[in-house]
Amino acid sequence: MYRSHTCGELRIENAGNKVKLAGWIQRSRVLSGQIFADLRDRYGITQLSFIEENDAAIFAQAKKLGREFVVQIEGKVLERQSKNTNIPTGEIEVEVETLRILNSSKTPPFTIENDTDGGEELRMTYRYLDLRRSPLQNALKLRHKVAMEVRNYLANLDFLEIETPYLIKSTPEGARDFVVPSRMHPGHFYALPQSPQTFKQLLMVSGYDKYFQIVRCFRDEDLRADRQPEFTQIDCEMAFVEQEDILQTFEGLTKHLLNTVVDAKIEDTFPRMSYEEAMNRYGIDKPDIRFGMTLWEITSLVKNKGFVVFDQAEYIGGICVENGANMSRKEIDKLIDYVKRPQIGVKGLVWMKCDNELKSSVDKFFTEEQRKEWKDAANAKDGDLLLIIADTQHRARKALGELRLHLGNELGLRNPNEFAPLWVLDFPLLEKDDESNRWFAMHHPFTAPKPEDIHLLESDPGAVRANAYDLVLNGNEIGGGSIRIFDRELQATMFDLLGFTREEAEAQFGFLMQAFEYGAPPHGGIALGFDRLVAILGGQENIRNFIAFPKNNAGRDLMIDAPSILHNDQLDELSLNIKD
Amino acid sequence: MYRSHTCGELRIENAGNKVKLAGWIQRSRVLSGQIFADLRDRYGITQLSFIEENDAAIFAQAKKLGREFVVQIEGKVLERQSKNTNIPTGEIEVEVETLRILNSSKTPPFTIENDTDGGEELRMTYRYLDLRRSPLQNALKLRHKVAMEVRNYLANLDFLEIETPYLIKSTPEGARDFVVPSRMHPGHFYALPQSPQTFKQLLMVSGYDKYFQIVRCFRDEDLRADRQPEFTQIDCEMAFVEQEDILQTFEGLTKHLLNTVVDAKIEDTFPRMSYEEAMNRYGIDKPDIRFGMTLWEITSLVKNKGFVVFDQAEYIGGICVENGANMSRKEIDKLIDYVKRPQIGVKGLVWMKCDNELKSSVDKFFTEEQRKEWKDAANAKDGDLLLIIADTQHRARKALGELRLHLGNELGLRNPNEFAPLWVLDFPLLEKDDESNRWFAMHHPFTAPKPEDIHLLESDPGAVRANAYDLVLNGNEIGGGSIRIFDRELQATMFDLLGFTREEAEAQFGFLMQAFEYGAPPHGGIALGFDRLVAILGGQENIRNFIAFPKNNAGRDLMIDAPSILHNDQLDELSLNIKD
Repeated sequence: MYRSHTCGELRIENAGNKVKLAGWIQRSRVLSGQIFADLRDRYGITQLSFIEENDAAIFAQAKKLGREFVVQIEGKVLERQSKNTNIPTGEIEVEVETLRILNSSKTPPFTIENDTDGGEELRMTYRYLDLRRSPLQNALKLRHKVAMEVRNYLANLDFLEIETPYLIKSTPEGARDFVVPSRMHPGHFYALPQSPQTFKQLLMVSGYDKYFQIVRCFRDEDLRADRQPEFTQIDCEMAFVEQEDILQTFEGLTKHLLNTVVDAKIEDTFPRMSYEEAMNRYGIDKPDIRFGMTLWEITSLVKNKGFVVFDQAEYIGGICVENGANMSRKEIDKLIDYVKRPQIGVKGLVWMKCDNELKSSVDKFFTEEQRKEWKDAANAKDGDLLLIIADTQHRARKALGELRLHLGNELGLRNPNEFAPLWVLDFPLLEKDDESNRWFAMHHPFTAPKPEDIHLLESDPGAVRANAYDLVLNGNEIGGGSIRIFDRELQATMFDLLGFTREEAEAQFGFLMQAFEYGAPPHGGIALGFDRLVAILGGQENIRNFIAFPKNNAGRDLMIDAPSILHNDQLDELSLNIKD
Repeated sequence: MYRSHTCGELRIENAGNKVKLAGWIQRSRVLSGQIFADLRDRYGITQLSFIEENDAAIFAQAKKLGREFVVQIEGKVLERQSKNTNIPTGEIEVEVETLRILNSSKTPPFTIENDTDGGEELRMTYRYLDLRRSPLQNALKLRHKVAMEVRNYLANLDFLEIETPYLIKSTPEGARDFVVPSRMHPGHFYALPQSPQTFKQLLMVSGYDKYFQIVRCFRDEDLRADRQPEFTQIDCEMAFVEQEDILQTFEGLTKHLLNTVVDAKIEDTFPRMSYEEAMNRYGIDKPDIRFGMTLWEITSLVKNKGFVVFDQAEYIGGICVENGANMSRKEIDKLIDYVKRPQIGVKGLVWMKCDNELKSSVDKFFTEEQRKEWKDAANAKDGDLLLIIADTQHRARKALGELRLHLGNELGLRNPNEFAPLWVLDFPLLEKDDESNRWFAMHHPFTAPKPEDIHLLESDPGAVRANAYDLVLNGNEIGGGSIRIFDRELQATMFDLLGFTREEAEAQFGFLMQAFEYGAPPHGGIALGFDRLVAILGGQENIRNFIAFPKNNAGRDLMIDAPSILHNDQLDELSLNIKD
């Protein structure tokens, strides 16, 4: 046993005790005749003192202690003269009587402090040092705690955690699979799962009734910021349930996490909103409802009044910035630049300041009377600012939704310590890809249409709503799921609609369709993005801080230098050649 | 909500209640005027009754119910006339008033009963049906329970579960890696981890102090029976510990599992045995100590007495079968055949029956007096049978160890409901591969030699013992681990001994060796084979029954038909060609 206590454990009550501690030297201050060193471990920091007068040999030894040296000490706990009320051990220090240097350390390439001087790339390369910093340690502790709470909560509801395989079969649907060549079966490949979707449905067919798994998933996507090729999800499925049962169950789980992990004190039922309402009022299917500034439409009010931009637009609508009328021209120009960026891509922004007079960027086209109508439509008060976009409905609402979030950030309306969960319901079953003119499953091909919309499947597929639902937290989709089709015939119809030939459907999902012939129960489920959930609970949106060893934006692990080339004999064994 | 109760829930107290149930028709018996059907779900079986007299329409409907149909019923709970005391719901039945067939079923290709008529291959192909059988449902419930107990036990000891990556770097050491071609980096590959070994050591360098993870691991081995290309382990590591701390911690965990999951009532400290003793007394490094029949050596007693087989052997030893003297010549011949099989490969067996007289197969070479000495050496009683093997020490002990286990099975000495844990300690650090004349790490290259043996590293590497330990349960190695080297110089020496050039070591483990330069703490760990642990706790040795979707012996998933060929455009995207 290297220690009698951790570095976060000693209190004033321990004064006088002989203790043994081990940890890292966070920093040391050499004064005349006395050295103070902070000894750190996962549990906290304890101040060590070395007094030349009492023991010159140890004092000399302590002089050599560098940052991040690993030491073991024995000593006596003393009440501190100048107490540090910021840390739990701040009332004591340990006067060192024996010092054993277990390992030395080179000077780290960046400081191991809450705010480090290391750049992203350097910290990724020395991830094992970055992981020593408190913010990352707290992130991983939070992750552990959330995982434990999830498991215990679901297990108490009789859910079984069941592991599904990682070496499965490639299905060229959805995102790209990562594949794994088989040495034993040359020319054949396994695939890594994008999710355990089919396995969890099979488990329902097998009668497991309530399944969950905290499971790694893999997607070989072109990477964007904050996407990881491997990610973790809380994957769940239940049999003999309707949508309402699933909403209740996972609202319970989420509420439990919000109340136990971050003490959010959420007692009310989560609000629910249809997809249509979300798009109308927030311009996005995952509204951040921590603040208002919702969208309103004035198309009929403003069209055909002679302003060509409005006259040619399908949709004219806006948002109202409370007390925004005092924004300078320069600030408004910045917002115009913001919406004109290619990522958003609308042509501009019409603004109107509500004050004694209503001053807008299009005064010459509209009378004061007409502008008064806009103010009313926006429910604006004096002092507010209206921002209006005219475009196709799709593009304008999307741009307004983004602008709203941008302003929410700028104006500090998105408090990371406030938690606003929301269910978004009634998603469309299908969406059309304009390029290929094909229907795609908005959720996935196993999602059940709402029974009352099934009659529209052939005549008006785009109007069919799904029994699908998303769980949204602070403007992030943290989960999504659906009631599944459990009838082989309806599933076959869906595959037809999605343009699968019977043969393709059979080749890819044959085992699932076959399983449905042997007594499949009604079932449905949900999957929560674990990395993002933890990040949001931690008050952040950067998931990388909540993953111990993440990949960078190019999908590389800079620390271990992966991916990397293989030896030729490994390629030979796998019967593979690299194409030039 | 499809049901008010599960099929395992109703009791005599519910008599008179109106209930709603859903599940599968296990079987139904049509009598004149009455039909009884067993409705099954994960929780149990409830008997349904349909009475023609009371409701002819429902009776007619019920006649059509086939095996594995999925139904929802409403009805009234009645006390049964002939009670079934074998099941918890056996005192009641439900008289059905409404019957809704949710899904029909084709006739399953094998019976969904505890003992099924389906062969292995058929059941693997229809795994989703096999998984409906109680023995498999119980296996997966046990697996879930063990995982929950492990996590809660370790979390209560301040262990953090930390997820390590699955897309890592290939290291051509140990078994073969599965690799994953990178589409973004043509010609480059990730590898799937054989274990998170280096990551957990890095987490110790990062100060996480106590880590665990229930984690999937991958090994592309030539498959043998009961080996899976992907398997799950309970992976653990602790900092600032000595071997004793780890033994105590994981003995605590194992005892907790034995006492809570299978009620084994184990209170004593686990026995400990050195590797040397295990090999001497059991002929194997993972002794099953549920029964005796230990090995003894009589080399010096019997050599140079004129019996050439003994005279030429390095080692002569045996086991004593209690009350085995009544074995027939035919039975003994079978044992001789057993040890002569190529898997064991010794030339034969000398036997001696201890009775009024000592009758052996080599009586003409040894006097009664001499044979009496054997009996004493074996600690045999009248009525026992001695079985003696002469060969190299290595081969003879191995053969005796196997023979002992074989007889243990034959004689019913290995009770699956008895649990005998054991620590095996003091493994050799290195073992020599005779073909290549190279030293290999017996555990792995990061294992620390015992400090008192370090001086032998250069002069007599084979004599150096490691701070390595195995946890053995009922003759199975369920876990193994070691104290790690945490000093870069000692690690470099080890790599030298193992024949790595500095460049190779740098290329493969550079990041770990570099990490050791920044203040690595003393640390060590253990990994438990989760699949096998659960199987043994379930009283079985076949791990496949304890994995929801296992691969067969050829590494194939027969249900989903994986691995399989890829579309050519997938290969193109990955810049790969298949060699003919």
